[in-house]
Amino acid sequence: MPDFQSLYAQLFEKLGEIVDIRHTLALMQWDQEVCMPQKGAFARGLQLATLAGLEHRLFTDAEMRSLIDTLRGHTEALSPEQAALVRETAHDLDRGIKIPESLVRLFAEAQSRAYEEWVEARRTSDFRRFQPHLKTMVDLSREKAEFLGYEESPYDALLDEYERGMTATKLRPIFDALAGRQSALVARIAESPYQPDVSWLDQAWNESAQLCFCEEVLRDMGYDFGAGRQDISVHPFTTTFDVQDVRITTRINPRDFLSALSSSIHEGGHALYEQGLPAAFRRTPLADAPSLGLHESQSRFWENIIGRSHPFFRRYLPRLRELFPGQLDEATSTDLYRAANRVAPSLIRVDADECTYNLHVILRFEIETALIEGSIRAEHVPELWNAKMKVYLGVDVPDDAHGCLQDIHWAHGSFGYFPTYALGNLYSAQLTEQARKDIPDFWNTVEKGSFSELLLWLREHVHRHGRMKNSAEIIQDATGSPPSPEPFLRYLEEKYAVLYPAQPQSV
Amino acid sequence: MPDFQSLYAQLFEKLGEIVDIRHTLALMQWDQEVCMPQKGAFARGLQLATLAGLEHRLFTDAEMRSLIDTLRGHTEALSPEQAALVRETAHDLDRGIKIPESLVRLFAEAQSRAYEEWVEARRTSDFRRFQPHLKTMVDLSREKAEFLGYEESPYDALLDEYERGMTATKLRPIFDALAGRQSALVARIAESPYQPDVSWLDQAWNESAQLCFCEEVLRDMGYDFGAGRQDISVHPFTTTFDVQDVRITTRINPRDFLSALSSSIHEGGHALYEQGLPAAFRRTPLADAPSLGLHESQSRFWENIIGRSHPFFRRYLPRLRELFPGQLDEATSTDLYRAANRVAPSLIRVDADECTYNLHVILRFEIETALIEGSIRAEHVPELWNAKMKVYLGVDVPDDAHGCLQDIHWAHGSFGYFPTYALGNLYSAQLTEQARKDIPDFWNTVEKGSFSELLLWLREHVHRHGRMKNSAEIIQDATGSPPSPEPFLRYLEEKYAVLYPAQPQSV
Repeated sequence: MPDFQSLYAQLFEKLGEIVDIRHTLALMQWDQEVCMPQKGAFARGLQLATLAGLEHRLFTDAEMRSLIDTLRGHTEALSPEQAALVRETAHDLDRGIKIPESLVRLFAEAQSRAYEEWVEARRTSDFRRFQPHLKTMVDLSREKAEFLGYEESPYDALLDEYERGMTATKLRPIFDALAGRQSALVARIAESPYQPDVSWLDQAWNESAQLCFCEEVLRDMGYDFGAGRQDISVHPFTTTFDVQDVRITTRINPRDFLSALSSSIHEGGHALYEQGLPAAFRRTPLADAPSLGLHESQSRFWENIIGRSHPFFRRYLPRLRELFPGQLDEATSTDLYRAANRVAPSLIRVDADECTYNLHVILRFEIETALIEGSIRAEHVPELWNAKMKVYLGVDVPDDAHGCLQDIHWAHGSFGYFPTYALGNLYSAQLTEQARKDIPDFWNTVEKGSFSELLLWLREHVHRHGRMKNSAEIIQDATGSPPSPEPFLRYLEEKYAVLYPAQPQSV
Repeated sequence: MPDFQSLYAQLFEKLGEIVDIRHTLALMQWDQEVCMPQKGAFARGLQLATLAGLEHRLFTDAEMRSLIDTLRGHTEALSPEQAALVRETAHDLDRGIKIPESLVRLFAEAQSRAYEEWVEARRTSDFRRFQPHLKTMVDLSREKAEFLGYEESPYDALLDEYERGMTATKLRPIFDALAGRQSALVARIAESPYQPDVSWLDQAWNESAQLCFCEEVLRDMGYDFGAGRQDISVHPFTTTFDVQDVRITTRINPRDFLSALSSSIHEGGHALYEQGLPAAFRRTPLADAPSLGLHESQSRFWENIIGRSHPFFRRYLPRLRELFPGQLDEATSTDLYRAANRVAPSLIRVDADECTYNLHVILRFEIETALIEGSIRAEHVPELWNAKMKVYLGVDVPDDAHGCLQDIHWAHGSFGYFPTYALGNLYSAQLTEQARKDIPDFWNTVEKGSFSELLLWLREHVHRHGRMKNSAEIIQDATGSPPSPEPFLRYLEEKYAVLYPAQPQSV
């Protein structure tokens, strides 16, 4: 009988090398989006392809298959954590071996090219520049889906990478419920006599003061700048090279300091998750989130539930007045709270309010399923986008930079990613309901800017598990209930009934 | 008979992947020195070890050996450039296969740790913190030398990596000549009645104006910021991820703008070489310099011969007055020229003047040969360093941060690297003598800040060859003479006889 502990040690060692390569790939992408000079893109594409190919070759080689084949049948000889590592690696391997290395290389190279062209296309609002690259990313993703296999829709094979077990068919009724109740809410809000005056916000906000404020809030949240950093990029993101090197980016709107603030808090929420993953399983697939939806629940929790709460603005108004001298003397914390939660159907997803946000996601879900299922082609995207924006949000899209070119995801070939944002909203509301029960002082701690108790709660119930449990189990164990859209809709309806009352009342 | 062109194509393809990994390693190191948060060091060390191990495994695998074994015997079936690629790859492979992958991994990991400890040790001037890491780097380098093999000294095996064919025995008479003539020159200078007054330089020089000026000079030199960038790091360096992505770093002295200027021009000289390597051979070992000495000739040419010339300061004084309003109203271009060329035995190599610079190198050469040959141990380095500084430069070392901890090289395990700085000085003077013959307008172009003719000359005679020729051939073909210390000593003695005349005369 083989020595399972020694085989496990071999697996652990080998996964270390593979995860090192994955983190190196993340560094190369971070550099591409944050530092790289423009002409470096050609070589970077080839380098990413080489490393992605190597990673795939090592991860799916005969040694790995043999280790997993043996260990997956003998998890009783392993500790529960060891068994979880074998189970998760086996899952990834079953997926990985279906995709040929040549496709992995092609995909990485195309991704890098598409990213560069997307940046330029977005800057000049020139969809035709991006169109052939979008087509390539759709074609390659479709090919990937065929290799992976699916029951109903090729889209399901891609979605599964981000939210395991989720399918387009399961998503549709959830999205129907969200679209119906959220549209009704948006309509009620539009009719409320209490529309906030946010004209005071349209001032020049010093950019370094904005960055300084974002960094202070991140520190208060518990983000460790000794194990991370914040930079500027076209599209804000979080990336991880180790539990001790988790980096975020933000972007600055010189006329609206709330924009960088919410970006930074959002990415900070992701980063706190990554910095809190089980360090004992660093350099293994266990030190990761079980799904992007659960990951998004953390960014949404901090961005919306905390960062758009009234206690939050009561806490930070004095500091904001110091950082922007003379610019906020008249504003009250209620003004900030109402401005941060103003509901207005708008063009840009990442700037969208909580009531309309999921509508942006649903629109993208509909377009990307159609692209992957082949019922529309890349060239139809702008027209379809603009038509759906009119239907869901009632807005006219002035140009593609403010329309279908706004997001990085399709340039990355990340089809199936968008729905996880909506799922993150749902999970975040469920976790909040429970955290408020467990921490009776919840809103007081926010008002004191003392977030350590909240962070500990998230570390305990979410972060420390890594992929030891799946996202449904984590939600179930943390809240006592399975994933459900109801708490999120309840949260929205309660919060906005107060912010936008039908009848006069105080906020 | 095998199809040699098809084998060559296989080699070219495979080298592409290997060079991609090498450039990825360079990115990881750049990030470690420029961006990485401190706590990221642990994981980065493992990641560097993994990638270095992979690179070594791929480069020395059976496929590579078989390709080279076949092709090296049939270079007549290849073009001269193809034959050069096979020859250079065969040389590297012969070296590479002698070193076991385990040592490559150990070395990369130890290097990353030693770098982190060196940064801290230097900051706190705490040699004992660095000492065990220095010992490790010496031991591992010594082990590497044993695997590589050598005739006289294990140091030769290491030196060969940076300057092929060079040995400690060949270097000693060159260094003796330099030490003798340069010490005599320094003594004459000390006795000259014309010591420049540089008290005007000790002002607060705005740091962003300093950076701005450095960038302007780099642009004028022809450095392409679309294919590179400049950052700040503890130790200035140049690194390459592709001919179209060549990055430099500098460091700022807030009380001496000439310091960042010379760092930036120096690294800019390296970078122009890298940006001018044969693009057709990007992703192969041919797109590289044949030796570090030749590389250094480019940085020295720009830093000293151009950047410390009188025409250079005549050109840039007006711009400097704009960037530092009111601070240079009294200074003449002669003041700047004399300040930039003030000779004063000093503590820091990178800030040393041209007359004493090689003495710093010779001191390091003597210590590192003794370390590698085992005649001294790591713990003896500070004492020996300080004693030699007294002998060669007559200065007392106040602490190790200004002594044996000042340079990054030993933390990187780069024993054998320092001598190439002195060789670079020699080559640069030889190239300059010839360039001044070929470009009669030489100093006029400098005074106009129009460096394109100089850059074209270097591109033509040095850069474009990559490793197609070795450094001795490049010097011979460019200048009609073999490498020699005479032109450099002549250059120094002529320049400084005017700057520090024994009798009154105008500069």
